Amino acid sequence: MTRSCETLTRWWGWGDINKTYPVEERPTYIPYLEEKLGLDVKEVRVPDPDIENVKLRKVRLKAATLKALAGVVGNKHVSTSRHDRVYHGLGKSYRDLIRGHLEQVPNPPDAVLFPASEKEVKGILKIADKESIAVVPFCGGSSVVGGVEPLNRKGLKGSITVDLKRMDKVIRIDAESQTATFEAGIWGPELEEELAKHGLYLGHAPESFKFSGLGGWIASRSAGRQSTGYGKIEEMVESVRMVTPRGVINTLDVPASATGPDMDQIVCGSEGTLGIITRATVKVRPLPESYDYRGLLFREFEGGVQAVREMMQGDVVPEAIRISDTEESALAINVRKPSSNAAKEMGTVAALKALDLLGYSFERGAFAILGCEGTKDDTSERMKRINAICRKHGAVPLGKSAGNEWYHARYDHPYLRDIMMAWGVMIDTLETATTWDNIMNVYNTVGEAIREAIADYGSESIVTCHLSHSYRTGSSLYFIFFGKQAKGREIEQWEHLKKKAGDALLASGATISHHHGVGYEHAPWFKKEYGGRGMEALRALKAELDPNGIMNPGKLGL
Amino acid sequence: MTRSCETLTRWWGWGDINKTYPVEERPTYIPYLEEKLGLDVKEVRVPDPDIENVKLRKVRLKAATLKALAGVVGNKHVSTSRHDRVYHGLGKSYRDLIRGHLEQVPNPPDAVLFPASEKEVKGILKIADKESIAVVPFCGGSSVVGGVEPLNRKGLKGSITVDLKRMDKVIRIDAESQTATFEAGIWGPELEEELAKHGLYLGHAPESFKFSGLGGWIASRSAGRQSTGYGKIEEMVESVRMVTPRGVINTLDVPASATGPDMDQIVCGSEGTLGIITRATVKVRPLPESYDYRGLLFREFEGGVQAVREMMQGDVVPEAIRISDTEESALAINVRKPSSNAAKEMGTVAALKALDLLGYSFERGAFAILGCEGTKDDTSERMKRINAICRKHGAVPLGKSAGNEWYHARYDHPYLRDIMMAWGVMIDTLETATTWDNIMNVYNTVGEAIREAIADYGSESIVTCHLSHSYRTGSSLYFIFFGKQAKGREIEQWEHLKKKAGDALLASGATISHHHGVGYEHAPWFKKEYGGRGMEALRALKAELDPNGIMNPGKLGL
Repeated sequence: MTRSCETLTRWWGWGDINKTYPVEERPTYIPYLEEKLGLDVKEVRVPDPDIENVKLRKVRLKAATLKALAGVVGNKHVSTSRHDRVYHGLGKSYRDLIRGHLEQVPNPPDAVLFPASEKEVKGILKIADKESIAVVPFCGGSSVVGGVEPLNRKGLKGSITVDLKRMDKVIRIDAESQTATFEAGIWGPELEEELAKHGLYLGHAPESFKFSGLGGWIASRSAGRQSTGYGKIEEMVESVRMVTPRGVINTLDVPASATGPDMDQIVCGSEGTLGIITRATVKVRPLPESYDYRGLLFREFEGGVQAVREMMQGDVVPEAIRISDTEESALAINVRKPSSNAAKEMGTVAALKALDLLGYSFERGAFAILGCEGTKDDTSERMKRINAICRKHGAVPLGKSAGNEWYHARYDHPYLRDIMMAWGVMIDTLETATTWDNIMNVYNTVGEAIREAIADYGSESIVTCHLSHSYRTGSSLYFIFFGKQAKGREIEQWEHLKKKAGDALLASGATISHHHGVGYEHAPWFKKEYGGRGMEALRALKAELDPNGIMNPGKLGL
Repeated sequence: MTRSCETLTRWWGWGDINKTYPVEERPTYIPYLEEKLGLDVKEVRVPDPDIENVKLRKVRLKAATLKALAGVVGNKHVSTSRHDRVYHGLGKSYRDLIRGHLEQVPNPPDAVLFPASEKEVKGILKIADKESIAVVPFCGGSSVVGGVEPLNRKGLKGSITVDLKRMDKVIRIDAESQTATFEAGIWGPELEEELAKHGLYLGHAPESFKFSGLGGWIASRSAGRQSTGYGKIEEMVESVRMVTPRGVINTLDVPASATGPDMDQIVCGSEGTLGIITRATVKVRPLPESYDYRGLLFREFEGGVQAVREMMQGDVVPEAIRISDTEESALAINVRKPSSNAAKEMGTVAALKALDLLGYSFERGAFAILGCEGTKDDTSERMKRINAICRKHGAVPLGKSAGNEWYHARYDHPYLRDIMMAWGVMIDTLETATTWDNIMNVYNTVGEAIREAIADYGSESIVTCHLSHSYRTGSSLYFIFFGKQAKGREIEQWEHLKKKAGDALLASGATISHHHGVGYEHAPWFKKEYGGRGMEALRALKAELDPNGIMNPGKLGL
């Protein structure tokens, strides 16, 4: 079987080169966007940029340096090929996709290295440190905040990307303690597959799951679909190893301790700026025997928000939560996939009408997905209590089929971005978190800022939001927005939006990111959020572990 | 009502000067210890050291410095009194109690300051930094690892203790988000009392609860009785403020974020070495309507351990867990408080005999306490499932009265230490955590090291252990040990034991502390556990925030 990280993936966009989003199954998608955004879509096609057209900067490394690096990892595992340099020169942010579609890769690494062991990682850092070469750690490369782009910094003589895909081994699975130790380069599907052999499960499934891995998750404080139940990746880390230019940070494999500042939580979120994570031990759990995902329809978004708050504060916690606001719910129903079975389709239409008569509508209400994973008894028991809370807050159950449809399509949406962008749509997402008392304020303020920013470039907009990744004290909010691209000024238009939205987030007391991370895209707001003294503390840490500043320059504002 | 921090507390030992442990209610206590340890106890009395006999080092601060400090906090709130200096010169470790009983306070602060605001804290640090005076933050002073003793360091010209007891205000209670913001000097009882006014509850109750507070808990990564359900204090922190000699660290009040290394988790466990925590926002929950604590008796300790593992890994989680090993169970039954009602007492004796016939015995088995807190339905439902798991692993229920007895006496034991020490008993505790696969190894190895260390000084020993504070991946183990004091060499004898036990802990892969912290007592092992690179990172952080090294010198090995 091909490992995920060996799948041929697109250098200019999302995912497996043999897959795309079956937009033809949703005949109303294009008319809906055309009407809402004032578009005129001529054709549906997957973009097809030609890698040969990318003007590629010359390799800036000396032959002797490349030879020395090859001495560490072997000739086969040092690449300066056009494909490897281009592929590792972009992440998956809107900026990256625009550049990919336009065949522009301004900051390719000069070489890409594929080490097979921690020893080789150390050897690479030793050479890079001596020769002042920037080092970018790379796991899946799915960063949407510019986390893997090799930036320049004065004094550095080039950059290399260290792709960990060969470091994907299982080190130890301890079924008694329910912990598992992996090399950091293992991707989502293989990690879960290895665990499943032992009846175990991590349960960390970000949208990038198929094209991202352990080291990247930890470096960027990633959150999976089921983080409400299982926690974010930083809560799953039991211990970690990170190679820095000045040696190895290695934490003890214990469930908790009172021994000083928590080094695990310094490594989590360090985004490659302090070192390269080489392995981690994570907390795992039994493979669920049942996945129970259901759809519901609330009369209004705020009812859904209050239902989730009641669940979290009443310890009735589902693994997965997604409460869509009205704009997102309306989008979902307007672009839905009709059944190919005519009778079934008529039934759906009739059911929607009946719901409407009862006052429940996707056009005015809030569509929700709630999912429980675990033993059959446990999931059905929790689902019963969750449904009762939802009913109290004005929801009607839509059943398992709505839940299953969402569950099965859960990794597909990133493919759609590339197609939509070819239609002239600016489409992107941003996310945050705040306390419950501030949720509706952030929802309104940030939504309004996004709408304004899109209008500033003369476009109508669709701005949707859902509540997901929830906690006793608050929740994440996830915005998806659509506008018409300002042709020739796509990146300028997007930067304008990011600035307005980032300013609105911080002004309303929310974080600049709950789980996408900082990279360089969020650095200006991160610095404000972290505070002057916090940034100085972080710079001091970096100066100690990476005194020559070779590790992932420009990320976290460092 | 008197605030807890205004209660008159002992300078030489534990707790309220008007309270002690009613050892006379347990007539077999002394004979049991005499027999087991080869003691000869002449009398039962509470020690009565005279503060006037303490040879007190002269105040090393210049009059001008004291005047400047008084300018910040007011004359009334700068003290160089004998009582204040002696009281703040000792914590509550075995070393401290021995020294208290012997009227020895080698490292008193030169002055004690009682600021009323963060502004005053900043003013104090400014003067101390300029004049190179060590600063020891002080909340309850209940450290058992030397965390509050003002140590000297070359280049420092004296030391001041900053007692936060006047900074005990509620800043904000947000019932909607279930968070509460307090000044860091608030002690346990007042904190819960303020929350209870709003029907809320923190649920953090370490054994020191009545004489410790928020800032100290956070600084030392404290764990409460109910940490299995509610988490340790570091999991309860939503955001925090810390004044350092170079400015304020202030984290954002959000439930989670992906914005770099987690500064909250750098402040947690910093033990005053980076700055003074001035306020924190904690996650709270509804006040439980029911507290259901029960006793059980396992056939053997390992059965109890396995039962707890099954609970944690099966998501059947009680708030409180304590599984005593056989030596602890035997101690409990042998020194138990007989009922004053003769018929009741006969009933108990008969019940114990009946249990014995069924193969359940305190002398050979493992006594356990399991506690659930929450709504009535929730606690009784969970208790049912917990009991079923325990039965499966060889336990018989002893009912609520055994649980309640333990619950009501839960803050009393520290008083007993002082009395026992007057009988010539070396009594102390130590604790750790490890993964489930290593629990019995640590239990055996560390228990054996303690036994050996006590034997090395020619004494028989009682070495007890219980499992408490448990997690999906492992648990804490808590040892209590008793030996005969080596008269005149009490501290040497104890240091010998601490060294053997600390070495055994680290050699067996466990942490040097799960919740007591590091202070200076655990610093040698902490340095090894944290690793060379970790320590350098920590020193770099300190050099940035406290460049003149005035903050709590000698703690965390800094």
